Parts: sequence; structure tokens; C-alpha cells
Amino acid sequence: MFKHDKALLHEVKVDGPNIMYASMMQEQLGGPHGELKAAMQYLSQSLRIKDPEIKDLFLDIASEELSHMEMVATTVNLLNGHVLDAKDATVGTIQAHVSTGLTPGLTSASGQYWTAAYIEETGDLAADILSNIAAEQRAKVVYQYLYRQITDKGVRETIDFLLNREEAHNTMFREAFNRLQDTGSLKDWGITKDSKLYFNLSTPGDQFFNANNPQPPSFNSPNTTGTKM
Amino acid sequence: MFKHDKALLHEVKVDGPNIMYASMMQEQLGGPHGELKAAMQYLSQSLRIKDPEIKDLFLDIASEELSHMEMVATTVNLLNGHVLDAKDATVGTIQAHVSTGLTPGLTSASGQYWTAAYIEETGDLAADILSNIAAEQRAKVVYQYLYRQITDKGVRETIDFLLNREEAHNTMFREAFNRLQDTGSLKDWGITKDSKLYFNLSTPGDQFFNANNPQPPSFNSPNTTGTKM
Amino acid sequence: MFKHDKALLHEVKVDGPNIMYASMMQEQLGGPHGELKAAMQYLSQSLRIKDPEIKDLFLDIASEELSHMEMVATTVNLLNGHVLDAKDATVGTIQAHVSTGLTPGLTSASGQYWTAAYIEETGDLAADILSNIAAEQRAKVVYQYLYRQITDKGVRETIDFLLNREEAHNTMFREAFNRLQDTGSLKDWGITKDSKLYFNLSTPGDQFFNANNPQPPSFNSPNTTGTKM
Amino acid sequence: MFKHDKALLHEVKVDGPNIMYASMMQEQLGGPHGELKAAMQYLSQSLRIKDPEIKDLFLDIASEELSHMEMVATTVNLLNGHVLDAKDATVGTIQAHVSTGLTPGLTSASGQYWTAAYIEETGDLAADILSNIAAEQRAKVVYQYLYRQITDKGVRETIDFLLNREEAHNTMFREAFNRLQDTGSLKDWGITKDSKLYFNLSTPGDQFFNANNPQPPSFNSPNTTGTKM
Amino acid sequence: MFKHDKALLHEVKVDGPNIMYASMMQEQLGGPHGELKAAMQYLSQSLRIKDPEIKDLFLDIASEELSHMEMVATTVNLLNGHVLDAKDATVGTIQAHVSTGLTPGLTSASGQYWTAAYIEETGDLAADILSNIAAEQRAKVVYQYLYRQITDKGVRETIDFLLNREEAHNTMFREAFNRLQDTGSLKDWGITKDSKLYFNLSTPGDQFFNANNPQPPSFNSPNTTGTKM
Amino acid sequence: MFKHDKALLHEVKVDGPNIMYASMMQEQLGGPHGELKAAMQYLSQSLRIKDPEIKDLFLDIASEELSHMEMVATTVNLLNGHVLDAKDATVGTIQAHVSTGLTPGLTSASGQYWTAAYIEETGDLAADILSNIAAEQRAKVVYQYLYRQITDKGVRETIDFLLNREEAHNTMFREAFNRLQDTGSLKDWGITKDSKLYFNLSTPGDQFFNANNPQPPSFNSPNTTGTKM
Repeated sequence: MFKHDKALLHEVKVDGPNIMYASMMQEQLGGPHGELKAAMQYLSQSLRIKDPEIKDLFLDIASEELSHMEMVATTVNLLNGHVLDAKDATVGTIQAHVSTGLTPGLTSASGQYWTAAYIEETGDLAADILSNIAAEQRAKVVYQYLYRQITDKGVRETIDFLLNREEAHNTMFREAFNRLQDTGSLKDWGITKDSKLYFNLSTPGDQFFNANNPQPPSFNSPNTTGTKM
Repeated sequence: MFKHDKALLHEVKVDGPNIMYASMMQEQLGGPHGELKAAMQYLSQSLRIKDPEIKDLFLDIASEELSHMEMVATTVNLLNGHVLDAKDATVGTIQAHVSTGLTPGLTSASGQYWTAAYIEETGDLAADILSNIAAEQRAKVVYQYLYRQITDKGVRETIDFLLNREEAHNTMFREAFNRLQDTGSLKDWGITKDSKLYFNLSTPGDQFFNANNPQPPSFNSPNTTGTKM
Repeated sequence: MFKHDKALLHEVKVDGPNIMYASMMQEQLGGPHGELKAAMQYLSQSLRIKDPEIKDLFLDIASEELSHMEMVATTVNLLNGHVLDAKDATVGTIQAHVSTGLTPGLTSASGQYWTAAYIEETGDLAADILSNIAAEQRAKVVYQYLYRQITDKGVRETIDFLLNREEAHNTMFREAFNRLQDTGSLKDWGITKDSKLYFNLSTPGDQFFNANNPQPPSFNSPNTTGTKM
Repeated sequence: MFKHDKALLHEVKVDGPNIMYASMMQEQLGGPHGELKAAMQYLSQSLRIKDPEIKDLFLDIASEELSHMEMVATTVNLLNGHVLDAKDATVGTIQAHVSTGLTPGLTSASGQYWTAAYIEETGDLAADILSNIAAEQRAKVVYQYLYRQITDKGVRETIDFLLNREEAHNTMFREAFNRLQDTGSLKDWGITKDSKLYFNLSTPGDQFFNANNPQPPSFNSPNTTGTKM
Repeated sequence: MFKHDKALLHEVKVDGPNIMYASMMQEQLGGPHGELKAAMQYLSQSLRIKDPEIKDLFLDIASEELSHMEMVATTVNLLNGHVLDAKDATVGTIQAHVSTGLTPGLTSASGQYWTAAYIEETGDLAADILSNIAAEQRAKVVYQYLYRQITDKGVRETIDFLLNREEAHNTMFREAFNRLQDTGSLKDWGITKDSKLYFNLSTPGDQFFNANNPQPPSFNSPNTTGTKM
Repeated sequence: MFKHDKALLHEVKVDGPNIMYASMMQEQLGGPHGELKAAMQYLSQSLRIKDPEIKDLFLDIASEELSHMEMVATTVNLLNGHVLDAKDATVGTIQAHVSTGLTPGLTSASGQYWTAAYIEETGDLAADILSNIAAEQRAKVVYQYLYRQITDKGVRETIDFLLNREEAHNTMFREAFNRLQDTGSLKDWGITKDSKLYFNLSTPGDQFFNANNPQPPSFNSPNTTGTKM
């Protein structure tokens, strides 16, 4: 069951309306690496997780991403301002001016509708957590790009908060991953000769990597010095 | 420049036509974790890579994934057989019988058209390689699912080959990742308090993970005992 | 902010796994009239609502629809069972067997990815509430279709609950609509002659309706005899 | 059978070419609340309607919406002018300059291809008419937004005509709806306790609406004083 | 302006309901080579055609394709029958049973929503007519596939009619094409050495074709012996 | 099997970064008439071709189109420059600035993701080659539009090369088509009276074309004076 608290997870504000910034922030509302994608991905994946602690982690983060989505949507809403003016809406926000009355839609910076094709889900916990670690890293990168191009102080504070939260999620997903040793798709890794081959198909360009000693992925543990709360 | 050799990267065969198996194998031709997606993702990402050895790795694997795609497409083509019979085409292959004359299309097992929305690309090497490691893991999982449900020996040999190749790619992408230390999105990790918080938003369910000591991702090195070829 | 309670809004159960029923119930998880659509539509619309009571109504119902989505997803998950068997997955669930490891995806009964193109949003309160009333009616109809074709008692109980909830939402949205008289898009209705014309463009077939006395929509008030709680 | 008359339903003209206005008007050609959507929705729904008078109404309006679509397309075509100049095509019309030779495409203001996912269709007459009433209201809202932002007199006259026609359709659909009492999805409304509950899931925020006395939707009759023509 | 005549262009009938045949016929209702695609393509292209005779041809055929679409939709509607039974709806029609109440939707045989991405439009008359000739040929092929797999006599008569009409359109589009000599994209063909090269990129496999004497496309005139009506 | 040569098929260069030109060139990278579409279409179609010479032609051209795609992608990459600046990214490239770090994505000029819905494939050789001839003509048209609007000399040279290559492909596809006489969908053309009718459905506008003497398509042979190499 989901409950909604009208307080935002973290207060947002903007220096003032700015259509271009609104377009840019749309990327993290309805884009491929945005908050809706993250929320729906973790929620979907959680349905079949058996380990109760990892399941709880997925649901904690899914709920937080929904709350992030609300923060980003509220930010876009503020940036959209109160004046219909499509002629200055040069990119993904033109529909805000001709179609949604300045209310944010679930679209990316280029105006594309959010699609569940963005979601990565396999039912294999190792694959799903690796997908989530990668997703958090991508989300961080997008927030870095946005931070560099947006000078509005209020928006920057929100981006800074969200970017750091993606790092936290990334860290915790890795912690969860390292519990999975030798289960699911991590089992039976590299047992045939085919898993050790290198096909040098792009030339010129020698072979600079190898898979001589294939082992399943595992992360260096970032939290060994940390204390379980 | 791409050149085509009419020999397949690895020979494929099937015991006989099987519409259901054809549908299932479509998933790795035109599905979200399939070979076309992998090829296009690595090729796109490679365009802006500066490190020549990593760029070469991406292009070697992209070319191999294109060659995998050709193997999977050839397999589907054989499984489609020579008889138009939509009434037995219970899932993703009905269009093979009413529209493409048994030629495989770029669709998933449920018949959905391939979309570039499947591609993960950020221009940040750390994020891109993490995306690729996750993508290879997902591809392995799908091949495992297919292997368990397909009893055709020829198809199984092809799946076995492809599955092991995804492991090899995974291993080599991790090797590449570990070269990136402290660059791009791996820099400045966990420097504000927000990156150390835990929001316990799903209850009941305590906090079983933490981010007290956040550090960027790095993999245990699987190849330390290996020899550079 | 969204918080998650691991208790479902209303308990779900199934008599047993049933792949076909799973496919059918997917329609209300990721289909055009399903619960994700409803949740995202009301949440998006709520962002710019000024009347605090109507805004609260939208957020109450959005949260409930998210909770419904969780109920439907949990039901599909149970119906998917524990056996990968694509050959019996004749419709929208084949990807559950080859790609998501039996975890429900955000797709419709025919396997199509959920898209934000399903969402109706205009920023005009009258248009948005009319859209919501229609959406609730469609959701009821789909649940009626599902109820007639599914004999699993557990699933039927869930459908019955959800169907009745859509009726409740419909009733309350109408109550909210009737507060809007003569505001937004309801203003200035039928003031030119063009709003009173009838173009009889399909023949044979006379004109059986007219717009001689055009007035904006308003509902008969269903709750006049009810008591505000 | 459809027949085409080269005369437009209502003459259109523009003061002069204007790329931005062209982009904006695209919204009602190929956008989610546009004329193609309306035409295809009513035409699709009409196929299974048994009441001949209501079926005739749907087909009259479907034909008119096709004719509206032609008016909007002709308007966009005029606004596109005769000069390829992508650098001034700041939004949804860039493809007109690089791909369609200034011919309008079936896309929205942000350039997205029209999709049948926009269509609402249930086979239940009550739900379908409610969907249509909401669709007409949304179309009116979009035309209002366009009218406020477009100063071209010719375009404004066209918008004014189309906006008033949506009102007429809305009025007539409501008239049709009120004939349906107690049929289809309007039957058996509110007969379990679940249809009377209120879940107060967003807080703070009390309960301001109720469903104590649930009854199916019905509209106040706007045409009682009108005369059947 | 479009007008609708309730008589079909050509009467349709079916021997009896058949869910599988309904799925298959959907391909020509909402699929990539179907009637809606043809109608919308020719209508869109016609907007900027200057030659009044060719423009008239495009609009005649566009109107006919709309009328074909109505024939196909009516056929699917009859084939859908009157019984909701998703468990026998093994492919593209499951949504007819759970969502549209047996009314045909604008989807393909695999249930995918129609998309304007199917439309080919360039604003260049030579390219557009070549696209149309190819489209008519594809439509014929699909009807041939359907004819071979459907034994219902009524449906076969309809297919036979439609297939022959695509041939007629194809013939007339070629006649129109041959009027275009040396205009638009047909001008300045093969004037640089690059237009005469052959890159032999797939090996083994020699070069069996050449472009030594490049000339723009023109068709052998099929109608020289015919009489203008 | 595909092999990659790091040398481009034909060198590309740009006078300097230009975001608008980058957007425009995206059309031929990930748009409906672009290089990826061509490569995937011919590759898919080739799978079931029996004539070894025609199959070789398809694979030669498919490989060349992949190599063209690489040229276009490299050009866009150069045009994207090195400065993140979404505010000047007025069209399809905003995501390059907020999401892909200036790396080209597989999208069109308006930022839409590439979709396999662009691909035309029927398994009938006559229909497929006609589709390809039309596709090459459309690609030429788009390059002509781009050439007229882009003044960058380096880009123009690349466009000139690619445009001429599409002409060469067009010429060779026609040569292949003319080998197909009376096979596949070219057989049994115009044998019923329905293939000779004209429906004059758009009025006013007489009948200016006819199908009195229907014959399947065949091209005037452009290469009769050429010498097979």
C-alpha cells in the first residue's frame, strides 16, 4: 500500500520560471534515466524477491524514487511558470504550452512519452541489482550534466540532493549484490572455453583485454569500515 | 566501415522447425536484452571514447554482437520453417505468417518492434561500462531461460555458445571498468551528508543496509591471475 | 512524499497459478485503462490544482490507484506460478517466461509496454475531471470483462473490490466536477452559432440529436441525500 | 464508404507562413487530443453500436472530425510556407524541413508520431460516450490554449470554428448518454460497501468528498428546451 | 471534406466467427501494410501536390483505402463474434476480449498499436509515388498470405476484392509516376562518379550488379494499349 | 559475420561544431529514411533470399549502409562539439546535452527513438525490392533537403557522397527487380475485373488515370548500355 504525505521528501524551490530549465529537468521526470523509471523498475523487480532484507531495500528505494519524482515534477511545475508562451518553449516543453496548461507531463527533455521499455527486469537478483547500480550511475551522470548547465540556485540545491541520493542507492545496491555470491546467474561462470575467447573483429586494434580467468562480478566492499545502523 | 563475411561467427543449426521456439528466440533478436540492442549500444557509446584500447574493446564487442544477431536471426529463420500457418503461431511470430513471409522481423518474443529506447548511453565511460556489464548479465539470464525451455539440440548449442560469450564480454567490461578509477562520474563520491542517509520508507521493515562509508563502484579483479595476451 | 506499507490495501489471493489469467490481469497492470495509468494520471494532474480539497481528492485517489496497481501486480505474480513454460504462455505473458523470470512487467494483456501516451492531462480542471470520470468508467468495464471470464475465486474477489472502488472514485470525481460551475473550459459555452450546428455527414441516417441549446456539462448530483462525513 | 469533397468543411486561411504556429497547430493534427484521434476513436467505437440513432451520431461526428483534420492539416500546410529552413523550426516541425518537404506529418507539436494508444474504446456505450465527452472537452481546452497564443487572424477564425464544433459534439454526446439509463456499465452501481468507502491516503488533508450514496453518472439535460430538428 | 455512406464500398460477410482469423485480418486494419496506413499516407502526401490530376488520384485512392479500412474493420468485427473468451484469443485479439468488448482496435495481428511511423512521406512526388507503389505491392503480398491461410469463403471474397484493388492502385500510381520525368528527385541522377561505384562488402560473393550507367527510375508503361476513360 | 575496419568507408569532416546541423543530420542516423533503417531492412530481408546473386547484393548494400550510418554518426559527433549547452539545442539534440554527453543517439531530427516499425519486410522479393527502391529515393530526397540547408563544406561533401550512393543502390535494386519477371507477387496480375476499376471518390475531379490493361511493375532497364563488371 502506498501513502502520500503532502510534505516533499526534501523541499524544492526555484529562483524563477525558466522554460529551458523546465525542459531540461523533464529528462529526470520522464526520461530514460529519470525518477519514474527508477521507481517503477525497483517496484516491479521487488515482487519476486525472496530475501526479506533485500526486498525491503528495493521497496525503500522505490518509494524514495517516487518521492524524488514528485520533487522533480514540482520543480518543473515551478519552472514552467504561469504564462502560456509556446514560442519560447523551444524543446520538450512545447506541449506544456499547447496541451497540458503548464502542468508537467511524463515526458523526457525532447518531449517523448515515458515508456516501460526503459525498465530492466529479469527476475534474476544478480542481473537486477547490476541493472540498478548502472541505473543509479546513469542518473548521477544526468544530474551532473544538469547541474553544470543550470544556474538557478534553487534547482541546483535540488539536483545536488538528488545526485547524492543516487550515490547512496548505488552504494547500498552494491552492498546487497555482494551478498549474492554464487547464486542465480552468478553460478557456473566461465566453465566452457567459449567464455575465455576474444574475437578481434575491429581492426586495426590489437587485443588489450582478455577473459582468461573468467569469474562472475563482485564489487570491492565499500562498507567494511562502516557500521550497520 | 563494416564488412560482412557470409560465414557465421559460429555455425547454427536446428533439429527442425518449431514456431514456438522461433517466438522465444525472437526475444534475443529484437527484444530489450537482445543482440541488436547490445550491438547498437556499444557502437553508439564508442563514438566518443578517447582511450584507444577501451574504444577498440567496444568496437570488437559491438561487431561480435552484430554477428550474434545474425546467428540468432538465422536460427529463427530456420525455426520458422517453410509453412505459413498463423493458427499455430501463438505469440510473437504471427506476423511472420501474415506479414513477413516467415522472415524474422526485429521484434521481441511478444512481437514488439525493437526501439532505441532500449539503449543506455550517457557519454560517461564509468556509467556506460556499468550499463554494459548489467546488459551482459541480463542477456545471460535470458539465454538461461531459453536454454531451460528449448529442447532442440541445435538451438541449445547456439544458446550455450552465446551465453558463454556474454560472460566473456562481462568479464572484459569489468576489466576495463577497473581502469577508470577516480575519473568521470566516479569522482567526488559521497562527499555530502545526503549520500550517507537511509530513508526507511517501506514499513514494516527495518534498515538492513547503509551508506555510511560511500565509495564509488569498483570490481574485484577477476583477471589478476590471467596473462595479457 | 510516498511511503510504502507492506500490507496490501486489500488482501489478494488466487486459487492457483494460471498463465492465461495472468495475461488477462496484465491488462489492468500495464494496459491503457489500468491502475498505473490511473495513478500517474491523477498524480500528474494534481500538480497544478489550486483548490486544496480537490487537490487532496486527486492525491488520495492517486495513492489508492498505486496501491491497486500493487494488488494487481501481486495477483499476476501469483498467477504466473513458479514454472517457466513459454509454450503455454499464449499471449501477453510470453516475456514473463523468457525475459522477466515470471515477474510481472508493466505491459498490457497483449504484451505492449505501458506508455505515458495513455495519460490525459490538460491543466484544465473541468477537462481533467471529465477525463477521470471516463477513465474510471472504462476501468470498471475492463474489470467486468475480466470478472466474466475468470473463474478463480480469489481473483474474482480482488476484481470485485477493485471494480467497486472505481465506482466510488467515479462518484467522487462527479461530486468534485459539480463544484466547478462556470470556471475554466466550462465558461462561455455555446455562444456562437457554430456550436449549435449539426453536420449530417453519414447517410442514410437523419439527424436524431441537436445542440440547439448548448450548455456546459454538469452531472445530476448523486450525493444530495448523502451526508458529508 | 467514405467520399471526399475537395471543398473543405469550412474554409481556412492564414495571414502568412509561421513555423512556430505550424508547430503549435500540429498538436491538433497528430497530437493526443487532436482531430485524427477523435475521428479514429468514434469510427472504431461505432462498429458495434446497436442503437441506429446513436450509431448515426457517432458516424456523423467521425466524418466531421476527419474533415476537421483536413482543415487543420491544410492550415499547417499554409503555415509551413515554401522555404526549407530547419534552423527556425525550433520544435515539432523540424522534420517538415529535413524530411517531409514542408508537408505536414501526423505528429504532435513536439514531433511525436500519432499512435493508436491515444484511442479510448471499450465496447461499452456508456464508457465510450463518457470518453468522448471528455475528449471533446480536452480538444476545446487545447484550442483555447492555441487561440490565446496565436495572433494570426485566419488561424484564429479556424480555431474559433473548431472549438465551437467540439462544444456542439460534447452537447450531443451528453444527450446520447442520457438515453442509456441503467444499461451496460451503468447497471448495478454501488451495490457493495466497497463502493462507498473513502481511503484517506494523502495527508495532511481530511476527507472532503464522499460516496455514501453512489449512483451511476447522468448529465443534467441541456436540451430540454431545444426542439428536435 | 469527408462524407460517409453507410453502404460499404463492397459488401463483406463471413461464414462464422473465428478468433484466429480475426487476429490475422487485424494485420490489414492496423498493421504496417494495412488500409489505415495507406489511407493516411496518401491523404498526407496529397496536401502539397500541385498537379491537379495527380492530386485527384491520390485523394480518390485515399478515400478508397479509408473505405477498405471500414471493410476490414467490419470483417474483423464479424469474426470476433459475440462471446468474450480470451482463453481462445491466442494472439493479437486478446484485448478485444478483455478491453474493447470485441470491437476491433487499430492494432496489428500481434496487437501493436498503429503508429504514424508507418507512413512514408517526403514532399517529393517521385519518392512518394515510388513509396506508394511499393506499399501497394506489400499490401497485395499480405492479402495473398491471408488468402492462403483463411478458408472462410466470405472473408476470402473480401480479400480477393481488396487484393485486386491494390493491383489497380499500383498500376495507376505507375502511370502517374511516368509523367514525372526529370522532375524533383529524378533530376541530376548519376552525375558524379560515386553513383557508379560498387562496394563489394559481403564476401565471398562477387559483384553481380553494376551502376555503370545510372538513370533515374521509370516504369515500362502498362497502359499504352488502354483507353483513357 | 560482421567485421569492423576503423577506417571509415569515406572520410568525413566538418568545418566546425554546429548544434543545429547536428540535429538535422540526426535524421539520417536514426530517422525513418536514415542509414540504420536501410541497413536493418536489407539485412533482415536478406535472410530468406534464395537467389545467391541477389542475396549478395542485399548484403553488400546492407554492409555499406551500416558503414554510412557510422559516417553519419561520426559527423553528428563532430557537429556536437565539446560544450554542453542545452539552451542552444533547440531541437532533436537536447538529449545530447542533458543525457548522452554529446554522443549521438539513435534518434531522428526531432529526437524520436529509432523503431523497427520503419522497416518494410514481406518475404516477397518483388515487394521487398520495390520497398528498397522507394527507400533509396526517399533517402536521396532527405539528403537533398539537408544539402540545401547546410552550408558547412565538410558536411556537404559527406552528403554529396551519400546521396550519390543512394542513387547507385537504387539503380542496382532496379536491375535486380527486372530479373524477377512473373515470380512471387508479380504473378497473376490483373486477372479479375476488380483490378481494372476506378472509384472516383474525391469530387470534383474526374478520372485521369485508368487500370484498363493492368500489368505488374517492371522498370525500364537503365543498364542496357552498361557492361557487367
